[in-house]
Amino acid sequence: MPFLRNHWYCAALSQEIGREPLGRIFLNEPVVMYRTADGTAVALEDRCCHRRAPLSKGKVEGDRLRCGYHGFLYDATGKVVWVPGQDKVPPNAGVRSYPLVEKHGWTWIWMGDANRADARQVPAFYWFDDPRWACSGGYLPMKGNNMLLVDNLLDLSHLPFLHPSTVGSQGDTNPELHWERGPDFVRGTRLATNLPPSPRFAKEGIDFNTDRIQVMTYTPPANVTVEITLTEAGKKPGDPTSRANRHIVILNSMTPETETTCHYIWGNGRDFQIGDKDLTLATHRMIESTFYEDIAIIEAEQLIIDLDPAAPQIDVMGDAGGLQARRLLERLIAEEQGVIEAAAE
Amino acid sequence: MPFLRNHWYCAALSQEIGREPLGRIFLNEPVVMYRTADGTAVALEDRCCHRRAPLSKGKVEGDRLRCGYHGFLYDATGKVVWVPGQDKVPPNAGVRSYPLVEKHGWTWIWMGDANRADARQVPAFYWFDDPRWACSGGYLPMKGNNMLLVDNLLDLSHLPFLHPSTVGSQGDTNPELHWERGPDFVRGTRLATNLPPSPRFAKEGIDFNTDRIQVMTYTPPANVTVEITLTEAGKKPGDPTSRANRHIVILNSMTPETETTCHYIWGNGRDFQIGDKDLTLATHRMIESTFYEDIAIIEAEQLIIDLDPAAPQIDVMGDAGGLQARRLLERLIAEEQGVIEAAAE
Amino acid sequence: MPFLRNHWYCAALSQEIGREPLGRIFLNEPVVMYRTADGTAVALEDRCCHRRAPLSKGKVEGDRLRCGYHGFLYDATGKVVWVPGQDKVPPNAGVRSYPLVEKHGWTWIWMGDANRADARQVPAFYWFDDPRWACSGGYLPMKGNNMLLVDNLLDLSHLPFLHPSTVGSQGDTNPELHWERGPDFVRGTRLATNLPPSPRFAKEGIDFNTDRIQVMTYTPPANVTVEITLTEAGKKPGDPTSRANRHIVILNSMTPETETTCHYIWGNGRDFQIGDKDLTLATHRMIESTFYEDIAIIEAEQLIIDLDPAAPQIDVMGDAGGLQARRLLERLIAEEQGVIEAAAE
Repeated sequence: MPFLRNHWYCAALSQEIGREPLGRIFLNEPVVMYRTADGTAVALEDRCCHRRAPLSKGKVEGDRLRCGYHGFLYDATGKVVWVPGQDKVPPNAGVRSYPLVEKHGWTWIWMGDANRADARQVPAFYWFDDPRWACSGGYLPMKGNNMLLVDNLLDLSHLPFLHPSTVGSQGDTNPELHWERGPDFVRGTRLATNLPPSPRFAKEGIDFNTDRIQVMTYTPPANVTVEITLTEAGKKPGDPTSRANRHIVILNSMTPETETTCHYIWGNGRDFQIGDKDLTLATHRMIESTFYEDIAIIEAEQLIIDLDPAAPQIDVMGDAGGLQARRLLERLIAEEQGVIEAAAE
Repeated sequence: MPFLRNHWYCAALSQEIGREPLGRIFLNEPVVMYRTADGTAVALEDRCCHRRAPLSKGKVEGDRLRCGYHGFLYDATGKVVWVPGQDKVPPNAGVRSYPLVEKHGWTWIWMGDANRADARQVPAFYWFDDPRWACSGGYLPMKGNNMLLVDNLLDLSHLPFLHPSTVGSQGDTNPELHWERGPDFVRGTRLATNLPPSPRFAKEGIDFNTDRIQVMTYTPPANVTVEITLTEAGKKPGDPTSRANRHIVILNSMTPETETTCHYIWGNGRDFQIGDKDLTLATHRMIESTFYEDIAIIEAEQLIIDLDPAAPQIDVMGDAGGLQARRLLERLIAEEQGVIEAAAE
Repeated sequence: MPFLRNHWYCAALSQEIGREPLGRIFLNEPVVMYRTADGTAVALEDRCCHRRAPLSKGKVEGDRLRCGYHGFLYDATGKVVWVPGQDKVPPNAGVRSYPLVEKHGWTWIWMGDANRADARQVPAFYWFDDPRWACSGGYLPMKGNNMLLVDNLLDLSHLPFLHPSTVGSQGDTNPELHWERGPDFVRGTRLATNLPPSPRFAKEGIDFNTDRIQVMTYTPPANVTVEITLTEAGKKPGDPTSRANRHIVILNSMTPETETTCHYIWGNGRDFQIGDKDLTLATHRMIESTFYEDIAIIEAEQLIIDLDPAAPQIDVMGDAGGLQARRLLERLIAEEQGVIEAAAE
């Protein structure tokens, strides 16, 4: 299956991009990212047009990127402005430049037709810039198809089984579950009542049972946000008598590197005890442990899939979201390919 | 070449299977093994029917196996008895169950048509249960086609060259060799006289020359037993004036994992000094070293074969057993495939 | 593209070959090399004709090589002279022998038709035997197509960018460059004036600007020599008033192992301070560091090429040598294949 191209993919957390070039492969294409002197993040093809060395092994000089092999110098648009041994730069010398947009601390890349890139369509993970929230995030590589991670995040029934020592609550096995589907999203709402606190919640001071709402939203190509509302069991959100009125968000972007590997860029935020930096760090570590558990099981799943890709699987209610997300993605890819084919005629 | 399916393959030493699930790939199929509460060993397909996670990453609960991802619960027959998020289990939810039989401390699996599995046909490595023998065994993975190990064990002319510091005797290069062939076995008898003791025999107290009979028996799909009789040079087996009247057995099962990798499950036993636990341990280590040497050369051989699979090879007398074993296996596979094709018509 | 076969390839530095067998793959064929009792280096197919174990895992006995598996004994021509378990050696038992010639401390192998091997055509890296030169060399494996290293050595414009801490001089970016092309060589002459000393030259006592001539010569199948003349800036070579009148040679053989890996055998020599062993060692280490830098960028380049082998590249003046070398090689391969096809008719 081809990749969906004319969409924004998360390339990195903004903090990952600096004055040292950062090389990553997206949708099988090598990309190098760096910041110019004024801090603007740019993305170029990570393949010198001369002898195909990765530019990410080179050096940033002012606004420019110098290939570490023969010194070809690229401006921030990917145009070669200097070559060794001759005065004239060949007119067509350059590499592809990719639209790259930063928003709320996340950096997004457009791998498709640059003319169609519209920065207003970049997902707004605004929590990272909201002073009422304490946020952190990270980057993890995964040896698995990225949609296996979408499945994972849309079916949170795995929490008590895969994550019993972090974010899973014992007994969280029979929530109410509703699905909504729009032209460009799939959303699930998961309602669980009277749950004992998970280890994460216990660490955050919850020592009573809670009601929890999880809203999981997939948006193509590869984003899932999980918004969580937590109250004391039996109390409504916002009820001032509830011992907890908490909101949590888990942000997830899983950009394909290849068909069977991906970049997992994640964030998490909370709207309580936001000044407590120790708690921020402890939560960060707990979420990261959780995602390592996800990655371990998905990488094992990918190996079993590779052993026999045609082996059947059985769907249950919890899979509705993942299945709809795949259907939505497939439709968009088919539409895009149709457009590409029509344009090629 | 397809694998022979309707035969018993050694899956593990029984001591390897317990209350933690053990995952192994046999004939390219993922299998998980565990013991139920009463100690019965069971084998299921190691691929959750839901999202294909390996069940071997899960947990045993009583007689059941719980998937470590979303908690699907399997009974010991592979039927799903619980799924998360809904009351009804889909009627067809389950994984394949494999006949698994324990006999004399070895555990055997049937990868073919379960209706044809007959526990009476399981190989009887009875020495492991015989109080007149001191036995031990182990498991070693090997990156080579399993028949390369059958070749190895049927042609013991390699002992003085590959194993000079363990089980090889200098000068053991010109034994008498006889071959017998039945409908379901290939057997060689190798007679060597007046041999100086190998390092192993020296460690076991032999400080004189010996006569040695080795009987190597291949039985399909993948077993080789080597039975050894040792006497003082010039004395007949059983002669009370012989300073040695010893018997040794080496048990070998080499179950294919894939076309180019296998599981080597081995055992060894002796009928002398059987109460000497230090000797049992020392012998165990020496045999294990021997098999590491075998594995190293076979893995090197496999790499050379992969480089040019069509490169010719020359056969000598010592290869008769290996060649006949391959012919027997190929005939059985052809018969089985014929049956399968006939059944499919 | 097939390999060029009827040419001499460097197999090893002579010092690498001794009484322990050395296994290497050349042009996808496994080869084992060792020295007979009188010190003669021989090369045989590294695949026992019996069961295809690599002979390089065996042992040298006198002039002969013993397989480490079943003890097959080969004479230095590759003929089997002993097999286990029988008196008669099968008449056709043996492995291929390759012409192998030592010259000036380098060992060369002929992978093609042995009848066409002419030792007089072996490259003469005579510096290694010349008492007026101090030389050293080494062996490095590389995970990249060998012609990427030919490109590297024929386009020394990479020196100031890839090797600023060893052999690169700042400002060495606009030399005069001339190319010559013969029926069996490609030669470039690179003239740079008034260069500040590179770290290597500084270590060798140069604390003034210099003029430098580099002559790079490619000869098929896979050799590049770089001859360097160094004088004080503004002085002619040989001018006794020049504070430097130095010559340096860098010898390079990059023999294909497979299509995407090669053996890099290198040497370097100088005609000054030749008695200074500490300097010889320091220079050896610096050159080796330089080549590790080359290997790192070429291995990265190979990965990017593998990602999209059809990605275009742009040529500049500096690439003339590499392009001509490839054209020469391709012509010779086509001629050789034509001969092979004609012979096969």
